[in-house]
Amino acid sequence: MSKLVLIRHGESIWNKKNIFTGWTDIKLSKNGILEAKNAGLLLKKNNFNFQYAYSSLLKRSIHTLWEILYKLDLLWIKVIKNWRLNERHYGNLQGYNKKKITIKYGEKKVNKWRRSYKSRPPKMNLNNKKYIKKNIKYKNINNKYIPLTESLEDTYNRLLILWKNNIINKIKKNYNIIIVAHGNSLRALIKYLDKISDENIEKLNIPTGIPIIYKFKNKNIIKKYYLYK
Amino acid sequence: MSKLVLIRHGESIWNKKNIFTGWTDIKLSKNGILEAKNAGLLLKKNNFNFQYAYSSLLKRSIHTLWEILYKLDLLWIKVIKNWRLNERHYGNLQGYNKKKITIKYGEKKVNKWRRSYKSRPPKMNLNNKKYIKKNIKYKNINNKYIPLTESLEDTYNRLLILWKNNIINKIKKNYNIIIVAHGNSLRALIKYLDKISDENIEKLNIPTGIPIIYKFKNKNIIKKYYLYK
Repeated sequence: MSKLVLIRHGESIWNKKNIFTGWTDIKLSKNGILEAKNAGLLLKKNNFNFQYAYSSLLKRSIHTLWEILYKLDLLWIKVIKNWRLNERHYGNLQGYNKKKITIKYGEKKVNKWRRSYKSRPPKMNLNNKKYIKKNIKYKNINNKYIPLTESLEDTYNRLLILWKNNIINKIKKNYNIIIVAHGNSLRALIKYLDKISDENIEKLNIPTGIPIIYKFKNKNIIKKYYLYK
Repeated sequence: MSKLVLIRHGESIWNKKNIFTGWTDIKLSKNGILEAKNAGLLLKKNNFNFQYAYSSLLKRSIHTLWEILYKLDLLWIKVIKNWRLNERHYGNLQGYNKKKITIKYGEKKVNKWRRSYKSRPPKMNLNNKKYIKKNIKYKNINNKYIPLTESLEDTYNRLLILWKNNIINKIKKNYNIIIVAHGNSLRALIKYLDKISDENIEKLNIPTGIPIIYKFKNKNIIKKYYLYK
């Protein structure tokens, strides 16, 4: 038996301001820190324990995980931080207000970029100061892996490599695992775990700070539920 | 060129209460958290950057490191948490007030336990609830390595294994490294780095929250200084 807990990071400052974030590395808001602490307390109350923790390379996910591990008295466990858990790359929409983008491109197009499985937003402009390859975080990752934009399918494909090469092996060894990631990277993972179709994944939304629990026996899911207060 | 920064964790709740701590896993005090934040700000102001970070398995060291990395915007770097950086094990003195222990055993004996290089305090009593082997943190470490008491020499010997097998390799590769550890584990490491004699190490005290900087060229130290405000 192994438990896998997925949590979407708490509210960031750009979530609050309604700005497309993607790979931009934005802090948690005060409310986001509180959401993280509450998730930690809830897991503690329900006697959760973990041997391994995962986050993306983005601070809103690392910080959320930290607050949770602090509450659980598990700061000492191994934390694996990997870019494959990063939020979906939002291309050249990153850094722009969602309303303004909707006015510019029209609701239909923006909705397609946001919800459909295979649609990619416009590529990150190489002259854009936010251009992600310049970030020292990704220096040791082969450039061909670093996206300039992503569909949810692209996110799914790069994330699944980490799942299949690493995470699933820990589940097979009956370790309990917590993954703190992002709205779209978790949608991608849940699409895989729950075998959701390309069409139906459009409707799935992941709430922030609510633990999603999977119980595994060997590598098979035997139970799934949301942990509410 | 490589920079190595050593920092003793900020004040813990038991530091404040004058209790022997050793491997007991005690939180930082509010003042200790502030010391950690200030160390982070100071390193930031002086443009320090790190590729790897190390801490012990004790939360006062992990938490101090976290506050520093948060200020440096380096939460995403790899953190290696290892029991070999733990504080010196204080045997059966752990959990007892330093004044009361001095009244019980006499100043001379207690001073010898505290300062001399080769002297060990009484072993941890196996019936003591604080008995460390019961701690899940150390479950995967061979029992023969887990001490019931330690001299500073014992701490030196177990810590040097991590230094020689792991840390020094990163320095040879010109990575910048930060290590957050404890009063006595840092005394042991500095004894090695500065080639301090068994007698002279008795006089060395490490201040909390003050970065100690070593510059290496290949594996040779070319400069050492304390970084003050």
